[in-house]
Amino acid sequence: MPGSGKSLFSSVAREMGLPVYVMGDVVREEARRRGLEPTPSNLNMVARLLRKEEGPAAVALRVAGRLERGSSPVVVVDGVRSLVEVEVFQRLGRVITVAVHASPRTRFERLRRRGRPGDPGSWEEFRERDMTELSFSLGSVIALADYMLVNEGPVEEFLKAARGLLERLLAEAPREPPGG
Amino acid sequence: MPGSGKSLFSSVAREMGLPVYVMGDVVREEARRRGLEPTPSNLNMVARLLRKEEGPAAVALRVAGRLERGSSPVVVVDGVRSLVEVEVFQRLGRVITVAVHASPRTRFERLRRRGRPGDPGSWEEFRERDMTELSFSLGSVIALADYMLVNEGPVEEFLKAARGLLERLLAEAPREPPGG
Repeated sequence: MPGSGKSLFSSVAREMGLPVYVMGDVVREEARRRGLEPTPSNLNMVARLLRKEEGPAAVALRVAGRLERGSSPVVVVDGVRSLVEVEVFQRLGRVITVAVHASPRTRFERLRRRGRPGDPGSWEEFRERDMTELSFSLGSVIALADYMLVNEGPVEEFLKAARGLLERLLAEAPREPPGG
Repeated sequence: MPGSGKSLFSSVAREMGLPVYVMGDVVREEARRRGLEPTPSNLNMVARLLRKEEGPAAVALRVAGRLERGSSPVVVVDGVRSLVEVEVFQRLGRVITVAVHASPRTRFERLRRRGRPGDPGSWEEFRERDMTELSFSLGSVIALADYMLVNEGPVEEFLKAARGLLERLLAEAPREPPGG
């Protein structure tokens, strides 16, 4: 959910040298291609259009097409929104879903502090954006997550938990034969 | 989600002397009234029928009608399934939502070990039951939880976390004037 801290998780993965693919980047590129500013409402519209024009897995399929599978035993995909998208990646290999949770109150306060253009100015705007996110069945992906990281406390604690989980996944990942 | 351990949370609340209302009890009563065995598939059908006949908040409204609000500063409602149901309770007072999470793998193994009649015998049956649960928008309630308790480790750890949270909520709850 917005403001939960999932991009922090990705930043830890990047620091560890893991490839990170951001679902939203595909949407941002498509918005640029269509001559639209990357505001949250435009990005949301483009994400909807893509899914309408090319099917519910459109964004995931574009990311999947770019994944360099041999490059690393663990690859991070940031921002999966629906079970249909999860299934796209399951066709490529073993998928571990990680959800990052923070309470609505905490996420709202973070987004207010962050104050990026397009971040919600009021609780009502925030709730509306949450509902848009959930309309893609994001809630089901969260409910079925293999790992749930709670990000309510100090940021250092969350970074440590993220690093710990990624190290564990790396240790457990099968080593594919070169070129395999 | 089934097997996450939410009824353990309720049992901690009961031990602490807090009133606990179980949404499923209303459904079980209604099944009995209709002469049906309380199998998961029958209970699911009755829950669906109730929501179809009396609206999506039917079960919550029946529970809300029984809540004795003055009885305790904190009252636990076990088994809310949708945001519409959460809204019913918000009309009665301040609502704190608590989600209990365990990974699908952990929940499946627990349900297998528990082996109650109606518990899933295969991974496919388990996934199907998960999907039925999620069809009520349970995922959105989980995604928007005020507190997320992860129940992957030893049961004692979870019971301690549950007790800690309930004690905190009790400490924070406003004391209503007698009869208020």
